[in-house]
Amino acid sequence: MKIILLSGGSGKRLWPLSNNARSKQFIRLLPSPTGGEESMVQRVVRQIGEAGLDCDVTVATSAAQRGVIEAQLGSGVDIVTEPERRDTFPAIALSTSYLSLEKRCGDDEVVVVMPCDPFTDGGYFATIAKMAEAVENGAADLVLMGICPTYASSKFGYVVPRHGEAGKAVMAVDRFTEKPTEERAAKLIEEGALWNGGVFAFRLGYIRAITSRYVQAATFDEVRSRYGELPKISFDYEVAEKAQSVAVLPFNGVWRDLGTWNALAEELQGNCIGNAVVDNPECGSQVVNQLDLPLLCIGTSNLIVAASPDGILVADKEHCEQLKNMVDKLPQAPQYEEFGWGYSRVVDVTDEAITSRIEVKYGATTDEIVDNEHDRVLTVLSGSGSIEIAGIATELSAGEVYKVGRGESYKIVATTSVQIISVSRY
Amino acid sequence: MKIILLSGGSGKRLWPLSNNARSKQFIRLLPSPTGGEESMVQRVVRQIGEAGLDCDVTVATSAAQRGVIEAQLGSGVDIVTEPERRDTFPAIALSTSYLSLEKRCGDDEVVVVMPCDPFTDGGYFATIAKMAEAVENGAADLVLMGICPTYASSKFGYVVPRHGEAGKAVMAVDRFTEKPTEERAAKLIEEGALWNGGVFAFRLGYIRAITSRYVQAATFDEVRSRYGELPKISFDYEVAEKAQSVAVLPFNGVWRDLGTWNALAEELQGNCIGNAVVDNPECGSQVVNQLDLPLLCIGTSNLIVAASPDGILVADKEHCEQLKNMVDKLPQAPQYEEFGWGYSRVVDVTDEAITSRIEVKYGATTDEIVDNEHDRVLTVLSGSGSIEIAGIATELSAGEVYKVGRGESYKIVATTSVQIISVSRY
Repeated sequence: MKIILLSGGSGKRLWPLSNNARSKQFIRLLPSPTGGEESMVQRVVRQIGEAGLDCDVTVATSAAQRGVIEAQLGSGVDIVTEPERRDTFPAIALSTSYLSLEKRCGDDEVVVVMPCDPFTDGGYFATIAKMAEAVENGAADLVLMGICPTYASSKFGYVVPRHGEAGKAVMAVDRFTEKPTEERAAKLIEEGALWNGGVFAFRLGYIRAITSRYVQAATFDEVRSRYGELPKISFDYEVAEKAQSVAVLPFNGVWRDLGTWNALAEELQGNCIGNAVVDNPECGSQVVNQLDLPLLCIGTSNLIVAASPDGILVADKEHCEQLKNMVDKLPQAPQYEEFGWGYSRVVDVTDEAITSRIEVKYGATTDEIVDNEHDRVLTVLSGSGSIEIAGIATELSAGEVYKVGRGESYKIVATTSVQIISVSRY
Repeated sequence: MKIILLSGGSGKRLWPLSNNARSKQFIRLLPSPTGGEESMVQRVVRQIGEAGLDCDVTVATSAAQRGVIEAQLGSGVDIVTEPERRDTFPAIALSTSYLSLEKRCGDDEVVVVMPCDPFTDGGYFATIAKMAEAVENGAADLVLMGICPTYASSKFGYVVPRHGEAGKAVMAVDRFTEKPTEERAAKLIEEGALWNGGVFAFRLGYIRAITSRYVQAATFDEVRSRYGELPKISFDYEVAEKAQSVAVLPFNGVWRDLGTWNALAEELQGNCIGNAVVDNPECGSQVVNQLDLPLLCIGTSNLIVAASPDGILVADKEHCEQLKNMVDKLPQAPQYEEFGWGYSRVVDVTDEAITSRIEVKYGATTDEIVDNEHDRVLTVLSGSGSIEIAGIATELSAGEVYKVGRGESYKIVATTSVQIISVSRY
């Protein structure tokens, strides 16, 4: 069994902690059972392991997210990056091609596709195991998870089981309904309809056949290079709604989208994360401070206060949904980026220069970095290793200063953890 | 006529914009008539000029505040620094000794002592002119300003005129009452009592005689070196309450202490100063953002949000008075310092190093800087001039990097404005 995690999104709704390089699923704020905090995607991968699912995990994502995924999930997962953003059908076609052509999985292999950011409990993963079983037993070509609705929402897609299937462990699907009115939703729920949770199970050959209608290729690299030939359409429209044989398994447990500050705040531990003090902890105000300076909240109630190198948010919890529109108007580059090899964080910006703190992890090697716009001065705060500038390698040690010219490439090999202040001048 | 401005205070009530190096009177937030913002002390000095008072200004302050006073007031004022913090009597005795012994003013010279941070209107300075006139006319040895009370406050000292003096332009003083209960205050106000505004006028010789009871010296430097012999007592107790001949002039106009965020906020222009957006400007929330990152306020009401390199405050306006207690618990050094030659601002702190942005003004020369705890790497972002490190001068230019060893002194002479990133390693 293979699991494909779909990782996308720009995450403006959780600004300033999320940005284009760090979607909401990568924000480390959820309490981890081992202490400290974990991100949504780390939580999902941990839960997959805890559920005892015997599977490999492949993450389907954009090139911009590769670094943060390597940083958070390590080498335990495969990563497939889309050459361009299209939609969920092409992303799943690409990932399944990777399993067929690169990992040499057979057509009978059971594959489960799921989003990487639902906040759920163990029952969700037990349902996934049953979905895989249903595919193995030939219950249907395509098996979906149906979330038992808790209210007549107009925001979700609905899966309607066939008449008379209600109560069965595996129900045949009659039809799909995308985002109905609330009134229509209430009627659907009466009929036994479930929310479409975006979790799909199938045999690899089933999707390979659909993919080959658009791209027939002998290697994964070829599929990838012809990615633009796959139609820009969702998996629901291209596969689920056209399928002749579809079944749904209900899941009735914790299932939340922590996509807004209001929703995320409910899962945080205590009032404060980071260097912060709230004077009246009963007041319902919550603070996440990722800056190195103290934050004080005095006499406030029901606020979300979030501070990061990208900005500072002070919002009434009931009004968080207005955030996205306001963030859309902010012109800015991400100020904090996580990579497989470490991180880079902007600490100062002037008209002339950008100053950043860079950390290269113990034993890690940075990418080859080329900057055509700036000269750079790298001052090593601590650690040791080597640095290659324009092809020439030198020893790197604490207290030393290295200059990199505009357009020259450089690369750092850290033998211990290395901290650097980088000053980039226009 | 000479004016002595008393400049003290630690300014924790306006954290994070005020700190030990920058008391509240130096925060530049008040709308200036020439556009932009001015500080409380800049406003007072501007008002003295506008009132047409023919006087020199001497600022009595601590050594820590000399830099910011030079930066804000330029060379138009004299500065007398106390060798240690004592109280208002020693501070005034030192400043008047400066006028006598250093500036060679005669005993007949009229001196007005006043705080540097009241928020007032032009009538305040017209009253000061009348006070000086009253001293010249021999109305009394000591002439005070009495602020016409607007409510029965228990926070102020009261000046009680003699029976039958009410309504006179210059009233003889019967007695002083320090911070009475509200009930007692109401009675005092019925009797015609005024608030003691801390503004005193006298002839120089009057205070010189009182000072010489403790220190008799031939030079100002000698008075300064014997500063510890002056009693640690307020001017009110040592001089005003013991004086035989005291008069008071009433002032009935704008007189506010902008010493809390709630009071200061009322004088600010608009909702936002700095890089900030408040989504509903009618909500009464006000933001001052001195950081280089965007700050968004969504759906909030009646908040003060203030951000600086020292920290971030989010406070309900009605609860600002709790700020001081909370700030007392924060262990921290000032992150932003203003000097006569420019400023220094901390942008990043790690266990190994402190990174700061330093600006040396056009044509200015820094102090001789010696740091016994850190090595320093100075990367010049822009500008030119020269730098002297351990006594050896070199040309300074943009893009160059200069290393200063631990304990070595350095000094920068800027021929244009110079911007530098300094990395100080332990």
